Amino acid sequence: MSTETELLLEQVTEQVRNRLRSQRLTSVPSVTGTWQDPAELRMCLAAGAQRLGTLDGHEAGPIPQNLASIIDHTLLKPTATRKDLEKLCREARDYKFASVCVNTTWIDLAVKLLKGSTVMPICVVGFPLGAASTAAKACETRDAVRRGAAEIDMVINIGALKGRDYDQVLQDIREVVAAARGRPVKVILETAMLNREEKIAGSALSKAAGAAFVKTSTGFGGGGATVEDIRLIRSVVGPAMGIKASGGVGSARAAKNMLQAGATRIGASASVAIVTESMAGRG
Amino acid sequence: MSTETELLLEQVTEQVRNRLRSQRLTSVPSVTGTWQDPAELRMCLAAGAQRLGTLDGHEAGPIPQNLASIIDHTLLKPTATRKDLEKLCREARDYKFASVCVNTTWIDLAVKLLKGSTVMPICVVGFPLGAASTAAKACETRDAVRRGAAEIDMVINIGALKGRDYDQVLQDIREVVAAARGRPVKVILETAMLNREEKIAGSALSKAAGAAFVKTSTGFGGGGATVEDIRLIRSVVGPAMGIKASGGVGSARAAKNMLQAGATRIGASASVAIVTESMAGRG
Repeated sequence: MSTETELLLEQVTEQVRNRLRSQRLTSVPSVTGTWQDPAELRMCLAAGAQRLGTLDGHEAGPIPQNLASIIDHTLLKPTATRKDLEKLCREARDYKFASVCVNTTWIDLAVKLLKGSTVMPICVVGFPLGAASTAAKACETRDAVRRGAAEIDMVINIGALKGRDYDQVLQDIREVVAAARGRPVKVILETAMLNREEKIAGSALSKAAGAAFVKTSTGFGGGGATVEDIRLIRSVVGPAMGIKASGGVGSARAAKNMLQAGATRIGASASVAIVTESMAGRG
Repeated sequence: MSTETELLLEQVTEQVRNRLRSQRLTSVPSVTGTWQDPAELRMCLAAGAQRLGTLDGHEAGPIPQNLASIIDHTLLKPTATRKDLEKLCREARDYKFASVCVNTTWIDLAVKLLKGSTVMPICVVGFPLGAASTAAKACETRDAVRRGAAEIDMVINIGALKGRDYDQVLQDIREVVAAARGRPVKVILETAMLNREEKIAGSALSKAAGAAFVKTSTGFGGGGATVEDIRLIRSVVGPAMGIKASGGVGSARAAKNMLQAGATRIGASASVAIVTESMAGRG
């Protein structure tokens, strides 16, 4: 880890601690858990940082021959109809993708159509702006999980992150993690809208809040996953956390580059093409 | 009203009635109110249609010299920070806009900053895809209203509308209207993504569901309000319902054209420019 990253992590820790101490915070509704203890938060961030010494030159695990098992087969455009969803789920069963990733309006249908298969039905929450209230995100999560969502991909509060309202960012993720009741939560940073400091802070806060994955992009934010961003995120969150590369990953080669850089999951709508290409040895 | 429009309205009515009768609907959670009675729905749609005879050549009311009182001063981009929100609310107080329109993460701040003024704090819900679950939209609405939102601008379930799942579209709006507890609900159609039939059906369903306004666009959907769409919507919903023209309304002239065509509210981020231009007699 570079000294620059280390300094930024220290800054995030410091600022969160100050916020937690400040008057303003007394009006924020409390959450179960010990996150309000600055020492715990600091330890959590530091733990991530300590592990990072071993991560420069981090070696990715073996890349599977068939990429399907690490791809979230994704359909999020608002014009998608029931028919489109049926096709998505059929493809997911046929190719044995890790999951289908859908908007919460479709979770009942996805759960039903994937029954008896190994494919997980997963949902996006607060999507794609991340600017819905924490109550709305938590409620959307609770409802989706109750209906059978196996994982939750939430969008970080981008405006709060940019305004360095780190306690708000943390609280937002914490409440979604709590609402997910043990289901893994991915935090979408929307990297195309962030500078380097914001990417680092967003990754550190996701980890501190108990998310299972950091995810790069919504696919709606004017940019997607890059190898550089995956490397940066990996260097911040350490080796154990999941990273999902999403947005513009359109070929087997691109997918493998992301895995090599440290990603552990791929989000794509071109999943069938990626797998076909990969199996034909063309990627 | 043209025979074509009349036929489409008849089709919407027919299809909703059939859906309501079908088996599938027994699994849809029931809502208070009598909408499940097809006769009532039909009457409601028909009532809209009957009034329309008088609407061809509909005359707009007098257009105010100062447009501020009918403009929702809007900031919805996800990168907006606390500072941007403070500026928005300051401008709204200075120019006496009808409201500020914000994402639900900012409602507390908007309520606080607008206290003692005539400017309403209003929110978008299920924004901008409209593909969040009905439970999520209703919960987001309930929370926003509890915190002080004076109006709710929800996005219609675009995929369900395109798939002609009209009962689902209706139910979705109905539950948000119920959650808003009397606060006016606007239904955003996202006209740029719809064909003529879908615009008509979306308008009719919004009216049938008890919404106060039909609104054209999110500003994120690749298109905005047009004079033709405002005319079409007005011809479907009758003279009493509100219509909000939003998306790309950037000048006093454009705003006045929308009002002339039948709009009663304008959503804009260029509101200060519009009002300045209008007051200077340049629009």
